Amino acid sequence: MPKKIKTEEPVDLKEACIQVARDFIAEHGIENLSLRDVARRLGVSHQAPYRHYPNRDHLLAEVLRRCFQGFAAHLDARDRLDDPKADLQSMGRQYLSYAAQHPLEYRLMFDTPWPQAAEHPSLLQDARHAFDLLLGVLRRIHGTQASKRALIELDALYIWSSMHGIVGIMQCKLTDRLELSPQVPDQAALHVMQMILKAMDSHR
Amino acid sequence: MPKKIKTEEPVDLKEACIQVARDFIAEHGIENLSLRDVARRLGVSHQAPYRHYPNRDHLLAEVLRRCFQGFAAHLDARDRLDDPKADLQSMGRQYLSYAAQHPLEYRLMFDTPWPQAAEHPSLLQDARHAFDLLLGVLRRIHGTQASKRALIELDALYIWSSMHGIVGIMQCKLTDRLELSPQVPDQAALHVMQMILKAMDSHR
Repeated sequence: MPKKIKTEEPVDLKEACIQVARDFIAEHGIENLSLRDVARRLGVSHQAPYRHYPNRDHLLAEVLRRCFQGFAAHLDARDRLDDPKADLQSMGRQYLSYAAQHPLEYRLMFDTPWPQAAEHPSLLQDARHAFDLLLGVLRRIHGTQASKRALIELDALYIWSSMHGIVGIMQCKLTDRLELSPQVPDQAALHVMQMILKAMDSHR
Repeated sequence: MPKKIKTEEPVDLKEACIQVARDFIAEHGIENLSLRDVARRLGVSHQAPYRHYPNRDHLLAEVLRRCFQGFAAHLDARDRLDDPKADLQSMGRQYLSYAAQHPLEYRLMFDTPWPQAAEHPSLLQDARHAFDLLLGVLRRIHGTQASKRALIELDALYIWSSMHGIVGIMQCKLTDRLELSPQVPDQAALHVMQMILKAMDSHR
């Protein structure tokens, strides 16, 4: 059992809880997160985190918000290109590099049961913001008329699915065991992006 | 704690362990599976399962094998169509219906850390067989020349990624919260299949 060390309370306890919770999840998994453990790691009283978070789900929602904010910032930091399809490809590369550099955050956002969402409107807002970046590029391809809205959303889900799928499939160990040609694993994500662009090109 | 009930040992203990393990995983998650719990549920001695499985990973590998066998059989039970692209679409529909009807098995195969695989060659064989069904349809599209092998594998990974991605994305609760147009969630999987076919159509 980890030793309880009493120290000065961090100046920004609310923020410190988020950092410690993220590290705790990295080590012990999301299902084991508790405000008690966070307090213990910070060396503060068991009650202290409750001043900022009514329960662990609220803290978890804050951790997730940071993930979505970082993810959106990463997508936004892409090389921006005038041609919307080239820009889409640039966003795709950023998506892949985010997943490679932040596997924990990626898993938390997309492969983990969420806390009760209705109670966390700001989390929803941050999640939607990331999705909106993709919708924005697609609006440049399809146009902004209301009649295009559903098509844009469907394309966004298709593109996200394909990228999310290749990230998951290349991470799961199954792919190592399919006896693929030696060059294929390295080319797979790029091939997915090329196929997405081909599908987009042939849109009516 | 569940009551231990001593009963007659099942005639086919090896097979009974697989069924009970699958049900145990459904209730308690894969990480909590132990041969001890399986024995307890079957009402046999703690040592009995060890006659067939050196450890829980071997039992887990058998559970996974059954998943892949059932999955491949489901893909094989599709309406077979002479046109390979129509056949691909038919396989896509079977993929989606498998995921909808067998969410636990689907998760076990594709979203769960596997037992040490090198020790379970027959599991690998069953997993590869399912992937081969997709490669087979793609060979009918691209031809069977050795020079097409890598392209066929890349297309297979792309198609699988897109389908796996849409299954995951529509299952995770995030999608409910993106304020999509009302018709979009129901159309998303079909749209992915259409985009896959468009991308395939535009292949050089």
